[in-house]
Amino acid sequence: TEGTETMQINHAQFCYNINVFFWQGSDFFFIFLFFRKKAHGSVFLKRCFVFCLVEQLVDEILKLNEDPKIHGLVLDLPIGALSGRVINSVTPEKDVDGITDVNLGRLIRGDLSECFVPPAASAVFDIEISRAQTPKAIEVLAKEIGLLAGEIESFGRNKAKVKLSLLERLKEHPDGKYVLVAGITPTPLGEGKSTVTVGLVQALGAHLGINSFACVRQPSQGPTFGVKGGAAGGGYAQVIPMEEFNLHLTGDIHAITAANNLLAAAIDARILHEATQSDKALYNRLVPTINGVRQFSPIQLARLKRLRVDKSDPSTLTPGEVSNFVRLDIDPSTITWQRVVDTNDRFLRKITIGQSSTEKGFIREAQFDIAVASEIMAILALTDGLADMNKRLGNIVVANNRKGQPVTAEDLGVSGALAVLMKDAIKPTLMQTLEGTPVFVHAGPFANIAHGNSSVLADKMALKLVGEQGFVVTEAGFGADIGMEKFFNIKCRASGLYPNVVVLVATIRALKMHGGGPNVTAGKPLTKEYTEENLKLVADGCSNLQKQIQIAHLFGMPVIVAINVFKSDTEAEIDLVCQIAKHSGAYDAVSCNHWAAGGRGTVQLAEAVERAANEKSTLSFLYDLKLPIVEKIRTIAQKVYGAKDIELSPEAQSKVDLYVKQGFGDLPICMAKTHLSLSHQPERKGVPTGFILPIRDVRASIGAGFIYPLVGTMSTMPGLPTRPCFYDIDLDSDTEQITGLF
Amino acid sequence: TEGTETMQINHAQFCYNINVFFWQGSDFFFIFLFFRKKAHGSVFLKRCFVFCLVEQLVDEILKLNEDPKIHGLVLDLPIGALSGRVINSVTPEKDVDGITDVNLGRLIRGDLSECFVPPAASAVFDIEISRAQTPKAIEVLAKEIGLLAGEIESFGRNKAKVKLSLLERLKEHPDGKYVLVAGITPTPLGEGKSTVTVGLVQALGAHLGINSFACVRQPSQGPTFGVKGGAAGGGYAQVIPMEEFNLHLTGDIHAITAANNLLAAAIDARILHEATQSDKALYNRLVPTINGVRQFSPIQLARLKRLRVDKSDPSTLTPGEVSNFVRLDIDPSTITWQRVVDTNDRFLRKITIGQSSTEKGFIREAQFDIAVASEIMAILALTDGLADMNKRLGNIVVANNRKGQPVTAEDLGVSGALAVLMKDAIKPTLMQTLEGTPVFVHAGPFANIAHGNSSVLADKMALKLVGEQGFVVTEAGFGADIGMEKFFNIKCRASGLYPNVVVLVATIRALKMHGGGPNVTAGKPLTKEYTEENLKLVADGCSNLQKQIQIAHLFGMPVIVAINVFKSDTEAEIDLVCQIAKHSGAYDAVSCNHWAAGGRGTVQLAEAVERAANEKSTLSFLYDLKLPIVEKIRTIAQKVYGAKDIELSPEAQSKVDLYVKQGFGDLPICMAKTHLSLSHQPERKGVPTGFILPIRDVRASIGAGFIYPLVGTMSTMPGLPTRPCFYDIDLDSDTEQITGLF
Repeated sequence: TEGTETMQINHAQFCYNINVFFWQGSDFFFIFLFFRKKAHGSVFLKRCFVFCLVEQLVDEILKLNEDPKIHGLVLDLPIGALSGRVINSVTPEKDVDGITDVNLGRLIRGDLSECFVPPAASAVFDIEISRAQTPKAIEVLAKEIGLLAGEIESFGRNKAKVKLSLLERLKEHPDGKYVLVAGITPTPLGEGKSTVTVGLVQALGAHLGINSFACVRQPSQGPTFGVKGGAAGGGYAQVIPMEEFNLHLTGDIHAITAANNLLAAAIDARILHEATQSDKALYNRLVPTINGVRQFSPIQLARLKRLRVDKSDPSTLTPGEVSNFVRLDIDPSTITWQRVVDTNDRFLRKITIGQSSTEKGFIREAQFDIAVASEIMAILALTDGLADMNKRLGNIVVANNRKGQPVTAEDLGVSGALAVLMKDAIKPTLMQTLEGTPVFVHAGPFANIAHGNSSVLADKMALKLVGEQGFVVTEAGFGADIGMEKFFNIKCRASGLYPNVVVLVATIRALKMHGGGPNVTAGKPLTKEYTEENLKLVADGCSNLQKQIQIAHLFGMPVIVAINVFKSDTEAEIDLVCQIAKHSGAYDAVSCNHWAAGGRGTVQLAEAVERAANEKSTLSFLYDLKLPIVEKIRTIAQKVYGAKDIELSPEAQSKVDLYVKQGFGDLPICMAKTHLSLSHQPERKGVPTGFILPIRDVRASIGAGFIYPLVGTMSTMPGLPTRPCFYDIDLDSDTEQITGLF
Repeated sequence: TEGTETMQINHAQFCYNINVFFWQGSDFFFIFLFFRKKAHGSVFLKRCFVFCLVEQLVDEILKLNEDPKIHGLVLDLPIGALSGRVINSVTPEKDVDGITDVNLGRLIRGDLSECFVPPAASAVFDIEISRAQTPKAIEVLAKEIGLLAGEIESFGRNKAKVKLSLLERLKEHPDGKYVLVAGITPTPLGEGKSTVTVGLVQALGAHLGINSFACVRQPSQGPTFGVKGGAAGGGYAQVIPMEEFNLHLTGDIHAITAANNLLAAAIDARILHEATQSDKALYNRLVPTINGVRQFSPIQLARLKRLRVDKSDPSTLTPGEVSNFVRLDIDPSTITWQRVVDTNDRFLRKITIGQSSTEKGFIREAQFDIAVASEIMAILALTDGLADMNKRLGNIVVANNRKGQPVTAEDLGVSGALAVLMKDAIKPTLMQTLEGTPVFVHAGPFANIAHGNSSVLADKMALKLVGEQGFVVTEAGFGADIGMEKFFNIKCRASGLYPNVVVLVATIRALKMHGGGPNVTAGKPLTKEYTEENLKLVADGCSNLQKQIQIAHLFGMPVIVAINVFKSDTEAEIDLVCQIAKHSGAYDAVSCNHWAAGGRGTVQLAEAVERAANEKSTLSFLYDLKLPIVEKIRTIAQKVYGAKDIELSPEAQSKVDLYVKQGFGDLPICMAKTHLSLSHQPERKGVPTGFILPIRDVRASIGAGFIYPLVGTMSTMPGLPTRPCFYDIDLDSDTEQITGLF
């Protein structure tokens, strides 16, 4: 017999597509078969026998490579049929089994997650693990999770933008469960929130068969080439391909950079033009006569409306109205809008601009921030759709005029262009974990001067896609006192979404540091306090864990403590943390081994999360938006950080007064505080008490919609170290593979 | 009867795929049919009759929308069956006919090119024409032009990157004909080289049935939001969708910005680190001991080799060798590498950086250029593959050390990271014209300090794809004296490709200006010299045309003059130009009407190009690379510009001496001269003579591979006018459509 057959089997909640290719020869047995389980997350393979002549083998494989109905190939051949030619004929896209001369002897597995062998030696790099797994084509993943063909825009083979129309289509569907991953106060070594996030969805999706989605932030390129390296998770809990995740992705940060810098250029150019032209000349240029017709653009009509000038014919404005219309009268000393680059460029922290003679002496001091610190990034993360984004972009306050009134992006006439530059960035990017479960990568606002959480839109879309029984896992930056507090008070307020569970990530070594262990530095060998059992340090450090559990309880959330296990951690240490955590009110506490074992290493955590999500929980916000700004700050300082009180500098107090006068008093608060301590002093580990939190200055992101008090000095532009990561990064021009990203 | 049928008909050189869906009801006649001619370029539609019940109509349309085998729908219904519901059920992707309530009465056309109705009024904007045409899915276009599925990476529905592996697959195939579009000395109004380029391929592909490809530059976002507006062609000769062409495209310029600025950050950070650390501290940081192992990275081994230190064990270097290795000893006053943004930000033309106290007083003057002026853009345009690009990136000279030796990107350890950032940008982006013919958009180097031509790789790939009888049309920036001269002497030298024909674009109004007509300003009404017949001005202005024809003849190329016709041009004016052009040695001279009529308006030009391409022509370069730098400059000045001689400033002379000493004497020359005159004085129109060309300074782009003499001051950062384009640009949040781009 010879032919192709496609059948569909409906079994319980799953639907299988089966593609069988079969034909018969005289010499050898030969198999081609592939089962795809359509619930997203896992892929099952089954065997089936087909007969074929070895001479036809390569030709038949080549044909199958081209057949879009065949999703993958599994070869099961007698030894005599194995040859380099046969092996090479299978394209990577169709090669479900990872056929190489090394692993030809491997058995076919019942579950793809079993492909992942724990690393043999410490020399295994994340990029090698990432590369060893061939991702599914993104269209296949999109179909698995229930997206329509017209709802995605592919960006190469491994990434796709998902259109916002999905939310309209699924608006009547119930949301899934919503899980936040947060951490204890971080140390320089990192606690692994990203790997836990990825490991958890791998366990839920690929091992427990529950629809699950991870929503993570897009990393800045600055750290990728600077100190920190990539941010795709790590080990066997990664977003793949990690190089695409860590580099340009689908260009969202570049779009933000372009929009941010267009607005910045518009500010200085406008000041120059106003200073060098009469009202009449400005008016003639701003509202020109084209082919005999003179009219206001829609954005100019909007400005007239704000100026309470109810006219639409440019010839009817009085000289006073013309002057008000053409002069934004920006006070350069009040400009808060900075230029950005997505590069760690410390020499741009403080600069002087406008020194060319063409700028006629309009020199001023300015700075560049890292792109992810742009308010436009915070807007992208908080918006719930195009109309809302356009409004927020127009509302951005870039400076005050000389009367102390806010000047906005809309006043500058540039808000429409900003929206146009951001029109694709607003769509979340779909990628996948190492075990083939779906991930949204979208937005990555700075976690100190902004709110440090991925986008509202990605969470909303994922919650619809997973369905009522499914799970969406998202991550908050820094420790729970910062990222989680902002998640609830800012992001949940913007989204209207209510989470079910908080997962609090800790490591034994970080707890030891909070318990009084010596300082640690990335790259340097750890001292014996960290590599040998030390129950005293662990127990003392659990004070920080306890405090963070209490913070989560302030918001009414059940907490599961996830201990991200390292090989030097002892069983006694882990047991101790679990015991203290539960004693402190945690719903459960479990150890996780996702780095070495992928989703299999996080099944226990996934089960605990599933149980906790079925408990009843009610989100309560920490403060009422109607409270005075100072009271809102005091509430966070006392209830979350454990401060005795706050103290505002005169500058901070006068800014608070200004914002209230400008009508911005009812916005939520986004604290800009060090992440390395619950207090404002990075060296104070554990649970500092009795301190007075100093508020040095207060700023406002009106487009994003929050007031941000500055506690101490916040660097918004990282630097490059003496030996940046880029020394090891290279591109092999033959294989097109990247080396040295980690 | 009821059913689906797919058949294939082979007819002459073309292959048709026919998809017919048919069934029968009792009330109405109903048609579904679509013919696709597989030669790229045009699409033919034919009618066929099917019967159907009107109640089933919408459901059937919805089904057909989802069927990937149905490429498009044409409805032919009795009036009674027309309803909003029926009209709305056809998705834009399948809507071949552009069904709206306005044009329901239109006849079905035999050729899609006839869809294009000349604009009724002058108020028709390019973006409206662009939007009125639904582009083919990019996968469909890719298949039509012979790309394999694995050779493209889609970026949304309308763009795809094409992999370089194509060149390897087709390396034995013959190249097609290669046509360069250049222009007379430009005026502020533009002569329409881009529209001629697009119109010409539309005529060749969609009207003459010849395989054809346009290769064009990616525009900078600066002008899009500043003064000039978009650059996708115009009217009925455009690359579509024009908003995607003009905005982020596939992110290449953003990648260049990221790479450029990473290198800039590395330079200043390195100077700071060297100045504040001992040799030993630097060495320990640059070559750290990790897990007990100390070793050089490959990029460091390359530097040791350049230093002639033949050692690979870090512990064996002498203190002198260590010092040489760790100290690049950059002389800050010699830094030529500037930061870039893709924004018209005049306040960054001259700045002071490093003013934050964290930079310890290492303050220096610097500048930002527009991103397309980056040397990395020139490298992208000139490279012939990954290995070559990596080498060029490493060779970039950013400064000299205090001994006067060049310091390169490889010395800074960053060249591998630059290659990684550029790994996707190196793949050309496939788009389409308004008439469905293929276009490569790739690279867009500044036309004054760089060479102003699209990429070598795109041209090479297109020449293979069109086949021996096909045509590739590419465009050179500015007038022929600049863009064409650099095309031959720089781009063709790098590519090894030999063009067949030069198309020289002129407009009647530009010739009038060269003939002594008054100045023109964009946006202002034209004076009567330009709107009424004036044969004297035309005849006088043809001197410039004659001179540019002669320049093309210097390179051994046949020239066809293309007159881009405006409605105020008279027949006598056009005839006069044609006559003078032919008299001056042009192979032919024809008028073009592509703006109003698309490819149909350029058929005559296409036929002339086809004839000329069959003539024998031999490319000769203007100068031998082995000539001294000054002689090469003199040759261009005298033979191309018509200068009496050149005069080097002392600074220019000393730079020439330095570059010769550094071993860069054999590079080609890339003149940085005003494009508004053949001379260095923009106000001198026509054919200036007797002038001495002043060479103010000489610079070098060693990675790109050219020396660039500066004739006068070149602005590398445009500014924003009082009323930038962005005032009119907006995004409709309901329809997601952009308004105001042009």
